[in-house]
Amino acid sequence: MPSAPAATHRPGSGVPPGAPIRRTAGGFPTLAAVRAPVDPTAADVDVVGIGNALVDVLSHETDELIDRLGIPKGGMTLIDGERADEIYELMGPAVEISGGSAANTIVGVAVMGGRSEYLGKVRDDQLGEVFAHDIRATGVRYEVALAESGPSTGCCLILVTPDAQRTMNTYLGASVHLGPGDVDPERITRASVLYLEGYLYDPPEAQEAFRVAARYAHDAGRIVSATLSDSFCVERHHGAFLDLVEHHVDLLFANEPEILALYRTDDFDEAVAAVREHVPYAALTRSAKGSVVVTPDEVIEVPAVPIDELVDTTGAGDLYAAGFLHGFSLGAELETCGRLGSMAAAEVIAHIGARPVDDLAGQARALLGG
Amino acid sequence: MPSAPAATHRPGSGVPPGAPIRRTAGGFPTLAAVRAPVDPTAADVDVVGIGNALVDVLSHETDELIDRLGIPKGGMTLIDGERADEIYELMGPAVEISGGSAANTIVGVAVMGGRSEYLGKVRDDQLGEVFAHDIRATGVRYEVALAESGPSTGCCLILVTPDAQRTMNTYLGASVHLGPGDVDPERITRASVLYLEGYLYDPPEAQEAFRVAARYAHDAGRIVSATLSDSFCVERHHGAFLDLVEHHVDLLFANEPEILALYRTDDFDEAVAAVREHVPYAALTRSAKGSVVVTPDEVIEVPAVPIDELVDTTGAGDLYAAGFLHGFSLGAELETCGRLGSMAAAEVIAHIGARPVDDLAGQARALLGG
Repeated sequence: MPSAPAATHRPGSGVPPGAPIRRTAGGFPTLAAVRAPVDPTAADVDVVGIGNALVDVLSHETDELIDRLGIPKGGMTLIDGERADEIYELMGPAVEISGGSAANTIVGVAVMGGRSEYLGKVRDDQLGEVFAHDIRATGVRYEVALAESGPSTGCCLILVTPDAQRTMNTYLGASVHLGPGDVDPERITRASVLYLEGYLYDPPEAQEAFRVAARYAHDAGRIVSATLSDSFCVERHHGAFLDLVEHHVDLLFANEPEILALYRTDDFDEAVAAVREHVPYAALTRSAKGSVVVTPDEVIEVPAVPIDELVDTTGAGDLYAAGFLHGFSLGAELETCGRLGSMAAAEVIAHIGARPVDDLAGQARALLGG
Repeated sequence: MPSAPAATHRPGSGVPPGAPIRRTAGGFPTLAAVRAPVDPTAADVDVVGIGNALVDVLSHETDELIDRLGIPKGGMTLIDGERADEIYELMGPAVEISGGSAANTIVGVAVMGGRSEYLGKVRDDQLGEVFAHDIRATGVRYEVALAESGPSTGCCLILVTPDAQRTMNTYLGASVHLGPGDVDPERITRASVLYLEGYLYDPPEAQEAFRVAARYAHDAGRIVSATLSDSFCVERHHGAFLDLVEHHVDLLFANEPEILALYRTDDFDEAVAAVREHVPYAALTRSAKGSVVVTPDEVIEVPAVPIDELVDTTGAGDLYAAGFLHGFSLGAELETCGRLGSMAAAEVIAHIGARPVDDLAGQARALLGG
């Protein structure tokens, strides 16, 4: 566990600077629960994210196609190249937009004005160039070398149904070759907060990169955050995820199905109680019901931001994490972090694609009172 | 000039079947002016289009970037690969969507329920596969072989400014290799109407394909339609375009700047008078002012369809042509053709990208009274 970075003290926050994060039994944080225990002046980057780098291929489809393909609606299914061709063939005209869960989050942080960096692998093909261009164009630092051989850039075939739900089919492609070698200690330790996606547990090399990165971050006293990503992903790696949450993660993101899958329960309150025993901070999203930010000492309910029209839920969780992390990495109050998450999620579900198109920086500044 | 296909007679239309198109001096059509002179039962395909096959790369940009790049706002500039890299580098995060002017039109025809075919060249790279997938997925017949060598698939870097205007930078890439060899006579003559984009005059091989296709169509008694595409394109090929309009086109599409450029005048009425001397049918679009459909004997004003929010004008002209051609190829009245054009244009400017996302078939059927 990290020796905690100092919390930023602002008058009236009630949090003295230097309040430590502790997470051994009986030593859960109390003071730091009000405000994120991060001093943004102590790092060069606010958030560094690691994930599977993918280009999204989005099309509007009917529920019948989902049924016909026999894939779980709303979930993420891993597919090989052959299956990708098969599904693509059946899809309607599509739009290509850079994606990748953690990449979306890291872009969201940058768009809100945070300093962010991304680690994820693409190939030196057209879609790889698109990915690298788009992430850099938002201001994200992206220095991972493009693979010169091996599988093509990974993609996620996303079927958006009339209810705005997205059903994802991921061909990991080049992203499986993100290995510990790409996880430069310097890239990890220069950031206040490390953010890892659970999907990294799907490719074996990336799993190792996940663990190595978490170790570098903790050794340097940084915060380690992670998302469970997907309830099917939790099922696939249940033991590893439980271990991770119990021993290696300071700030956990999950939606309701994911946290229920982790604790193998149908009762949300039971899952909340369990996660409070395991992590100092958790942000649990519940779609239109908003989110619940919990620490061992506190439960803060944060409402969702209402929107006019729900168009495409792709990226809702990614952008919630972006808003939350943006606030967290600046040492904001936890409730503000949650509100930043709700705001960013509301923007992304009002249009197609998982990356923000509106200027979120102004809204973020307003919420941060800056 | 073609010996005209028979017009479809419907009770009350006042047009007897078999009314010929004539366009020699003093022999302009009179009867056929009310209703398009097409019998849809006489062909296997309604509209076949030929154009430069491109993938659009769209991003939201400021006017400052347009100024800095020194490119004409609202126009289309041809660029080479090096310049494409330079502009792409300066662009924000983008979205990739299959494009190409005539391709957008042909997709529009298919989406409205018409039988359509497209001829245009891409390479066997990732973006070429995207192009081929997307156009086929809308129901368009697309049988042109992907190039196995040579330049990569062409792309159009489109900068969308806050006023919803699009400024286009086209790297023709593989599309320059669409040659007369790709223009199979069978593919041309099985369609009631041939549609050609003026942009085809930019690559020399495609220019030849344009002429060959028009000859095949006329020899088989089909209608030849074309769009002037862009006022700068008209300037680049002024003599050729005048010859084309005077001698080879039955149905001409142009927007206001294009028709003014063709007749080198500032006076729209003067341009209208001139075009009525040259072509049996012309559909002239004037943005929010709607369109004017003219024949030697008639001038029909068609209003634009009002929309809630103008998002991106990319594809407005392409989709106007789609709606018009859909009606025309079914032998509809010219005013209905114009209304179908307005309807399709209104759909495409209300969202980002140049291809329709809404179901236009229902709206088209309603306008066609079917």
